[in-house]
Amino acid sequence: MRSTASIYVVSGGAGFIGSHLVDALLADPRTAEVRIVDNFSSGRREHLVQHRNDCRLKIYEEDLLNLARILPVFPGADCVFHLAANPDARWGIENTRLDLEQETIATYNVLEAMRLNQCKRILLSSSGTVYGDIGTEPALETRGPALPISLYGAGKVASEALISAFCGTFGFSGVILRFGNIVGQRTTHGVIFDFIRQLVADSSVLPVLGDGRQAKPYVFVLDLVAALRFAEQLLLSLPPARCEPFNVAPHDATTVGHIAETLLSCLGLLGETRIRYGDTPYGWPGDVAQSRMDATRLENAGFLLPRTSDEAVETAIRAILGWLRTRPAAEDGFKLPPSVRSFNAAS
Amino acid sequence: MRSTASIYVVSGGAGFIGSHLVDALLADPRTAEVRIVDNFSSGRREHLVQHRNDCRLKIYEEDLLNLARILPVFPGADCVFHLAANPDARWGIENTRLDLEQETIATYNVLEAMRLNQCKRILLSSSGTVYGDIGTEPALETRGPALPISLYGAGKVASEALISAFCGTFGFSGVILRFGNIVGQRTTHGVIFDFIRQLVADSSVLPVLGDGRQAKPYVFVLDLVAALRFAEQLLLSLPPARCEPFNVAPHDATTVGHIAETLLSCLGLLGETRIRYGDTPYGWPGDVAQSRMDATRLENAGFLLPRTSDEAVETAIRAILGWLRTRPAAEDGFKLPPSVRSFNAAS
Repeated sequence: MRSTASIYVVSGGAGFIGSHLVDALLADPRTAEVRIVDNFSSGRREHLVQHRNDCRLKIYEEDLLNLARILPVFPGADCVFHLAANPDARWGIENTRLDLEQETIATYNVLEAMRLNQCKRILLSSSGTVYGDIGTEPALETRGPALPISLYGAGKVASEALISAFCGTFGFSGVILRFGNIVGQRTTHGVIFDFIRQLVADSSVLPVLGDGRQAKPYVFVLDLVAALRFAEQLLLSLPPARCEPFNVAPHDATTVGHIAETLLSCLGLLGETRIRYGDTPYGWPGDVAQSRMDATRLENAGFLLPRTSDEAVETAIRAILGWLRTRPAAEDGFKLPPSVRSFNAAS
Repeated sequence: MRSTASIYVVSGGAGFIGSHLVDALLADPRTAEVRIVDNFSSGRREHLVQHRNDCRLKIYEEDLLNLARILPVFPGADCVFHLAANPDARWGIENTRLDLEQETIATYNVLEAMRLNQCKRILLSSSGTVYGDIGTEPALETRGPALPISLYGAGKVASEALISAFCGTFGFSGVILRFGNIVGQRTTHGVIFDFIRQLVADSSVLPVLGDGRQAKPYVFVLDLVAALRFAEQLLLSLPPARCEPFNVAPHDATTVGHIAETLLSCLGLLGETRIRYGDTPYGWPGDVAQSRMDATRLENAGFLLPRTSDEAVETAIRAILGWLRTRPAAEDGFKLPPSVRSFNAAS
């Protein structure tokens, strides 16, 4: 048994989570090669510029929906991190086919490309949304039935099931990580980034989707990368035909109202900006308003997140603000204006 | 609240289970219209000839993979029975894309066609395969995680999750029925029909996939139709955004060896035909060798299957033999030869 893989495929490797994982893989001298497959719909080349001189990094700009085009990515790969997905659960409301394609069919193509290349170890980024709307009950991996309320969640359930089926039928081994909400620098969406954009447009008022009491467990992205590398070791030790799910989340949860207040506090805007809450208990149709996750299984396997949910949120806010102030010209066109004095408080 | 719907859509309505359901719906004078959508890949026109003069039956020969073509099937429908699927779990081993298309994408298209037609009540034929390989533990609906070991099972999990997501996001209501193994006349595949075909080809030996100790719960198809109509009432009483799964299976299970012996006994071949067992505990890769299901939830709702698993198998064997002997020229080309004297014993 190897203790680490040496040739990796990272789907979505130019994205928010994927690019941080690629940083970690390339920082490891045992890594022989990292192959990113990304269609750059949400991924950004700016997240990878720091590796421009590292010949171990190969970038395949391909769409996972095109099986023939992604086949050359997989030969000889020891371990596949399948992170590519539609990054925003809300998009599925307007485009109901999006998650079917970007999650379910994309995952099928990754698995089929692996099968055709005799490559059999996969780790999936899944989500606590698979548990559906179960209120404040701490979700365990053994909880069923999986009745997600968003098309995003349905895509995650389908992707998990496909991996499990390739394990059972073709002798793959798989690790499924069900993430809490991941926050940190290089984010392209999500509550913190949305709030910052709104404050830059108008710092007098911060509109919040829902009544602000929605509460979910948050994970700082660099802590998640540590969990991914830990899970890689679990994956390499699994026998064929085994598929194991693990929650990755703190046991507590942070309300959207608390996030808004923490952000305003970091920006020196508390008391200046008025927070305007909505009147629904959820942010949008399909939003899981209350989510709690129990990560005892991963802890018993040997990995403990170093931060509570509130600590993850505060760490992420500072990291995002620092990143926005110092990053080079961004592909997304968004810039923190120097005229907003209060943003300097984050330094 | 209506106690029954009056305009029905039945996907896969020309198939094994679907055609029996259509018989029951058309036997009900409250039924205004039954619309079958079927691509006739496994469905057969001969299953519907008895309704040729019933103007309430509309047959749409369309493929569920073509969303634009199935849109006209749904306007005004009160209730959709989504039964269309790849009928044989083994086919997914050779063609890994089959279940993705015939289950997951087909279900998505049905849901999207319903959404575009403001039609919001759906009942899905799912399967005990969603529970994966959990040995002889009686599966409850609340059991997780759903880790199917076949691509067929993965398609069922994905279809369930899609229905749940359309409930949560668009206010659909859904009932998911997780079937045991369904047996009876008009079958196109499955263990009993396979055995009969083999005996017609050579009655001296009956080869069995696996060691014969595989055991699953069996349901006679007409008992399943009663369960479907009961579940229709549950569906009509559900509020919007609710999705409810129910197992439909007896609590016991029948071994493949017992099925072989019961069939030989019905045919007067016991002692004449040698049963040749394989040496694996399962029939094929992805076969769930042991399956037990707990249907207490459906029983508490008011529906109890009238037969044990062994009784369902024996009833089905007699029904299948009677059907094969009396049916008109069959599209599948299979005929019980009158020269096989022993088959007369089944009358």
